[in-house]
Amino acid sequence: MAHGGGGRLMHDLLANLFLPAFHNDALAVGHDSSVLATGGARVAFTTDSYVVKPLFFPGGDIGSLAVHGTVNDLAMSGARPRWLSAGFILEEGLPMETLWRIVHSMQAAARHCGVEIVTGDTKVVDRGRGDGLFINTAGLGLVEHALDIRPAAIRPGDRILVSGDLARHGMAIMTVREGLLFDSAITSDSAPVHEAVQALLDAGVEVHCLRDLTRGGLAGALNELSAAARVRIAVDERAIPVREDVHAACEILGLDPLHVACEGRFIAFVAAPEADKALAALRTSAAAPQPALIGEVTATDSPIVVLRSRLGANRILDMPSGEQLPRIC
Amino acid sequence: MAHGGGGRLMHDLLANLFLPAFHNDALAVGHDSSVLATGGARVAFTTDSYVVKPLFFPGGDIGSLAVHGTVNDLAMSGARPRWLSAGFILEEGLPMETLWRIVHSMQAAARHCGVEIVTGDTKVVDRGRGDGLFINTAGLGLVEHALDIRPAAIRPGDRILVSGDLARHGMAIMTVREGLLFDSAITSDSAPVHEAVQALLDAGVEVHCLRDLTRGGLAGALNELSAAARVRIAVDERAIPVREDVHAACEILGLDPLHVACEGRFIAFVAAPEADKALAALRTSAAAPQPALIGEVTATDSPIVVLRSRLGANRILDMPSGEQLPRIC
Repeated sequence: MAHGGGGRLMHDLLANLFLPAFHNDALAVGHDSSVLATGGARVAFTTDSYVVKPLFFPGGDIGSLAVHGTVNDLAMSGARPRWLSAGFILEEGLPMETLWRIVHSMQAAARHCGVEIVTGDTKVVDRGRGDGLFINTAGLGLVEHALDIRPAAIRPGDRILVSGDLARHGMAIMTVREGLLFDSAITSDSAPVHEAVQALLDAGVEVHCLRDLTRGGLAGALNELSAAARVRIAVDERAIPVREDVHAACEILGLDPLHVACEGRFIAFVAAPEADKALAALRTSAAAPQPALIGEVTATDSPIVVLRSRLGANRILDMPSGEQLPRIC
Repeated sequence: MAHGGGGRLMHDLLANLFLPAFHNDALAVGHDSSVLATGGARVAFTTDSYVVKPLFFPGGDIGSLAVHGTVNDLAMSGARPRWLSAGFILEEGLPMETLWRIVHSMQAAARHCGVEIVTGDTKVVDRGRGDGLFINTAGLGLVEHALDIRPAAIRPGDRILVSGDLARHGMAIMTVREGLLFDSAITSDSAPVHEAVQALLDAGVEVHCLRDLTRGGLAGALNELSAAARVRIAVDERAIPVREDVHAACEILGLDPLHVACEGRFIAFVAAPEADKALAALRTSAAAPQPALIGEVTATDSPIVVLRSRLGANRILDMPSGEQLPRIC
């Protein structure tokens, strides 16, 4: 199980198996989606499979999640999301009414995101060989800006912004699974972020890199990007928005909120003089509910992520190892 | 299980659930892939999930199948296949060596087809909640011809050609599963067909529609197309290539070879005066191992598929109902 959690084991699986086997220029960029040249246009292409458990959770379900997750991966290239595919793997015995609810949730999410589900496929596996249903979505988006948004574009001096409070998706799933009851349920942050990205682009911000904070959370994303760009990243714990109830739930379960997945949050690396403009642009978008400047990039010989804690001490912020939160997406 | 087999129940699931929910112009075309306009270029987009059992079978494995199947769906739009995504759902406990073999088989198949796997994703599910591994591939191809290849373009008078002998993929899987031993194993026909399609296009053949003969086999494809184009289709059993050993295996298992899936065969509907040219073009391509003219289209008020049998009698060739062959792809 530890291989699927977005931590170091998954990182090793990618580095040692998939990337060498499938080696090509697009994969080598190490981005959430690949940008391809198709006769004049630049098209972003991405895929994700969704195996979240339970299928319905506070704030969403596997259907809306499968739309938001892929829309967000496209947005991380600064692409305008346009078309999705949908592949269903159904376990024999899945109630038709469950499938019906999920398909309609997907369609509502797609309409809300302004994308169309244009191709699909359904397979059925025997009872006990699946788990209700799994969904794969692949996505296509059009890259209409002239920027080169990718990990290698991160530069010393860049400022790092986050679009909203962290860790709600992972904790919404975990509290349901663990049967934890709070005064009010923690709801998932599952949502599309492409309009917040568009607000940055429309404002003319010099965006260097974008990354959504899914498996591995903020810590996973920062460690991957620090390694990819070969830079030192420092973030300030006091500036990172985490709700009090989410903090409390994390403490009960022994989790670090910086390791817990979101499904509607991203970080942006922008040129230093652009930080205020970027923050102002994000504040205009409902898709960035609590934007904050959380850190900066410096040059280094040995990539590292450092967290300046609430008490003022610096500590290394490691990539999560193994599987903290299986099947959260 | 009956919903996944490419027969009438799957057809009903599509017609009653997915198509109305996701309704849009691209889906309404009813094709293996959707053709999208992206700034001057036409891009074909398709997806399939693969749940074949066993993972390795005579003539292929789930990895090469996942490449060929999606390459072939793109080719059915007359597109030149270019890029694939790969989404893996691994069951906890899958031996790494198995994954390694499958990933390398995918890469070898991709190289052979001239496509690149440019984006991917891996999820892990707990033991007993999956079945070794499932793979989803989505594909992108470039449509470089000016034809409008789709079911609605089929016309009375069109001739129907098939690219090779039928039913080997399904029977390769079934004989392994049922433990049937013949003098020599039936090997799958899993293979890319895009070069055979390109041969038709290069020869300037007026192609109206293409369809690969996967789930539901020839009978499923002809019934879907007869309904979509509202035409009568007549095919001649004597002209349809089926190997003797495949016939024998079908008889033992009580299957009709015209209902059994291929993974490297397609039919082409071409304007009547083009049939000889089309046959000659297919004969130049190794991707069409046994091309044959098998039938023709006539006008009708009530769509139907008619088989002229070896004995000269006409009978209705029905769509397979329910699930003959679960998990063959």
